Amino acid sequence: MQAVSPENRSFYRHFESIPTRWMDNDVYGHVNNVTYYSYFDTLISGYLIRVGGLDIQGDEIIGVTPETFCRFRQSLTFPDVIDAGLAVERLGQSSVKYLVGLFKQKAEEPAALGHFVHVFVERETMRPAAIPEKIRRALEPLLVEAAEV
Amino acid sequence: MQAVSPENRSFYRHFESIPTRWMDNDVYGHVNNVTYYSYFDTLISGYLIRVGGLDIQGDEIIGVTPETFCRFRQSLTFPDVIDAGLAVERLGQSSVKYLVGLFKQKAEEPAALGHFVHVFVERETMRPAAIPEKIRRALEPLLVEAAEV
Amino acid sequence: MQAVSPENRSFYRHFESIPTRWMDNDVYGHVNNVTYYSYFDTLISGYLIRVGGLDIQGDEIIGVTPETFCRFRQSLTFPDVIDAGLAVERLGQSSVKYLVGLFKQKAEEPAALGHFVHVFVERETMRPAAIPEKIRRALEPLLVEAAEV
Amino acid sequence: MQAVSPENRSFYRHFESIPTRWMDNDVYGHVNNVTYYSYFDTLISGYLIRVGGLDIQGDEIIGVTPETFCRFRQSLTFPDVIDAGLAVERLGQSSVKYLVGLFKQKAEEPAALGHFVHVFVERETMRPAAIPEKIRRALEPLLVEAAEV
Repeated sequence: MQAVSPENRSFYRHFESIPTRWMDNDVYGHVNNVTYYSYFDTLISGYLIRVGGLDIQGDEIIGVTPETFCRFRQSLTFPDVIDAGLAVERLGQSSVKYLVGLFKQKAEEPAALGHFVHVFVERETMRPAAIPEKIRRALEPLLVEAAEV
Repeated sequence: MQAVSPENRSFYRHFESIPTRWMDNDVYGHVNNVTYYSYFDTLISGYLIRVGGLDIQGDEIIGVTPETFCRFRQSLTFPDVIDAGLAVERLGQSSVKYLVGLFKQKAEEPAALGHFVHVFVERETMRPAAIPEKIRRALEPLLVEAAEV
Repeated sequence: MQAVSPENRSFYRHFESIPTRWMDNDVYGHVNNVTYYSYFDTLISGYLIRVGGLDIQGDEIIGVTPETFCRFRQSLTFPDVIDAGLAVERLGQSSVKYLVGLFKQKAEEPAALGHFVHVFVERETMRPAAIPEKIRRALEPLLVEAAEV
Repeated sequence: MQAVSPENRSFYRHFESIPTRWMDNDVYGHVNNVTYYSYFDTLISGYLIRVGGLDIQGDEIIGVTPETFCRFRQSLTFPDVIDAGLAVERLGQSSVKYLVGLFKQKAEEPAALGHFVHVFVERETMRPAAIPEKIRRALEPLLVEAAEV
């Protein structure tokens, strides 16, 4: 029996389609390494807003980012459209660790994979707060068995 | 009889769907003015690559940009998905003037509209060159009656 | 007697030094056209904050952007450092029209020049408001004779 | 005797001053997490070009990025100017691991710190290649005792 790993498309619980932009390409003709993180960011924030009901203007509890990481495997190039996959590895009291895989269309193995951590804090004081119920309910279906990335 | 203008969705000949990204929002909670131009850029370059067969790595004749302009009407906000509309107002020997309209989904009037000019040049010498046939054929169907933007 | 024009470095009343970034370069090896507007934006907002005392988090009256324009003359390339020059062409009751010139170091003629308009509005209602006194005092020294760009 | 760590300004061997830009701020009023990596990128590529003589258009051997990481400690906000510090933790045959610390002006502790890896490859084949001598000579003075980040 083989464990599913973040190296496989089937590991991820939610997918978003993210088209590259002309500006994403750097002088070497490939998407710049920095820009991969904007795909992470867009995937995760979009999910929290659309599925978790996060209100970025009004909510008193918001997510801040203590740590991100990315491993780059293959080049992406405009005008590629990326399948961005999301999973949750750890769902704590006030923090969540996401795993992200970026796939070319139809590819089984990720062009890049990494993690992204959110700590939820009170917007005013920036002190850690419990993950709001509406967010927690949105994240639970994304939970996978612990995996190392 | 009323003339169709760049103020109407029906003016544009080609549409592309461009999702906003988290980073596009600025501190006021709306897509930053600079980013609108990356939608222009992505719309136009994507069309030249996909429909016109432009090869950004290999072609000897490429488009450079002498002038761009944008008029902002309404705010866009992540996670909006934008319908970006394209038309060609003037198709010269070596230059083309595009008109672009950015629409919220289902909106009839643009949230922003503007123009973008390409001059085609030899990559090596940067001297003006005739628009390559494959590009011209892709642009001709986008031609509209002259309109002021 | 010859009038000084936006085509000359001496036309501008305030300068900011803006280093390019690796990501600013696009696949053709030059700063992408979109990014020039982020130099405009950074120059103007930085001036309003530092000299005009604009508080982007707290002020009730903020500037929004109805229109921007740029004419591109020469390529810029990372790691160029840009001298960004600012002038005010029109200072109205609630709006201001800036002229911006981007110069390579030591160059007399701009690599790019354009304009940028701010309309000041109440943050809550988005209705036009008088330019706050502290901002107006900061902008007055930048006023030049009207010039066409 | 206490070892100097990446947590201290004195750990880093080379500094670059990087001004933030208006667009760097996100909707929460702080520099977006993605943008920190563009400071890493700009610091490292700028050093390779200016000190190492890297020619991004012409060189046959270029650096590609298999992995980056960032730990975020404090918010940065436009118009902050960042002191970006660079060190080299490991200098191999064809790869180099950089450590980066981003400091507010006058701060002793980094607002963010992380690592960035370059593997040098032949531009044509993308196969690993020895680090060019001119680059190696530029990197050697940045070498520090191994440290965990």
